[in-house]
Amino acid sequence: MNVHLQKIKDIDLAYIAGFLDGDGSLIAQIVKGDNYKYKYGIRLSIVFYQYKKKHWFMLWLKDQLKYGYVRLRKDGMSEYVITASGPVEHILVLLKPYLRLKHDLCNLVLKIIKNKKNIKSKEDFITVCKLVDLTQEHNYSKRKTITTESVIDTLKTLE
Amino acid sequence: MNVHLQKIKDIDLAYIAGFLDGDGSLIAQIVKGDNYKYKYGIRLSIVFYQYKKKHWFMLWLKDQLKYGYVRLRKDGMSEYVITASGPVEHILVLLKPYLRLKHDLCNLVLKIIKNKKNIKSKEDFITVCKLVDLTQEHNYSKRKTITTESVIDTLKTLE
Repeated sequence: MNVHLQKIKDIDLAYIAGFLDGDGSLIAQIVKGDNYKYKYGIRLSIVFYQYKKKHWFMLWLKDQLKYGYVRLRKDGMSEYVITASGPVEHILVLLKPYLRLKHDLCNLVLKIIKNKKNIKSKEDFITVCKLVDLTQEHNYSKRKTITTESVIDTLKTLE
Repeated sequence: MNVHLQKIKDIDLAYIAGFLDGDGSLIAQIVKGDNYKYKYGIRLSIVFYQYKKKHWFMLWLKDQLKYGYVRLRKDGMSEYVITASGPVEHILVLLKPYLRLKHDLCNLVLKIIKNKKNIKSKEDFITVCKLVDLTQEHNYSKRKTITTESVIDTLKTLE
């Protein structure tokens, strides 16, 4: 746990919550990977994009939230991504009191992270996948997503 | 001046500043109109859009900022618009300490509003129009805009 993050001011948390509600993404995904025990894993991320000329702002944001990586992409965008359950959970716990548009999604993601820590069986994993499916209703992304259905199909072939 | 707005909490101002930085628009425009003394006027606005299902959020925002109008558009969007110098100035003065991405644009719009109050001649009006032109560099809008050049051309025909 990153102790420095505790020093962030309430006023900055409120600002960042407003910015995340307006222009950030809070994403839960089922991702494929042969190294995962159940052939799929759960990825949680907080993502911000800005035009390159606003790169200084991304660096400020990263300076506040500590976790994650800021990079300038070849397409002229500045991107700030925080992935992994621990950092995402820590940040969400801090932002939650101030979030409005993404408040329910935040609760759902926190529930996913909590349940993810206690996966002891295929069934537990599928339960978490179903929670990930529910996050789709909160996001307007047109990205192709892996749903619980795909996971169940794959796990059947492993039996 | 809307006195109720003075009661808005710092934490809510910080949140709204974050939201405006992320997803709101702060717009200065030269608009045409035969009723204007110089055939053009200056319009200042703060605008927010959300999908219809987030209409409750727009109502919350309007409840905080008091000024302006929220409406559900036929295209399924909820829109919150604050126009007119007085309300825009009042809100910007309150948000300014918390704005980051739009901080410079905010200063420019406040300057426009201040100068707009003291227009005593064509030259004064053109000076304000030039400040409006400068706001284009802050916005990424592809909207067709009226620039100072058009104003100067029109004013010449009136001489």
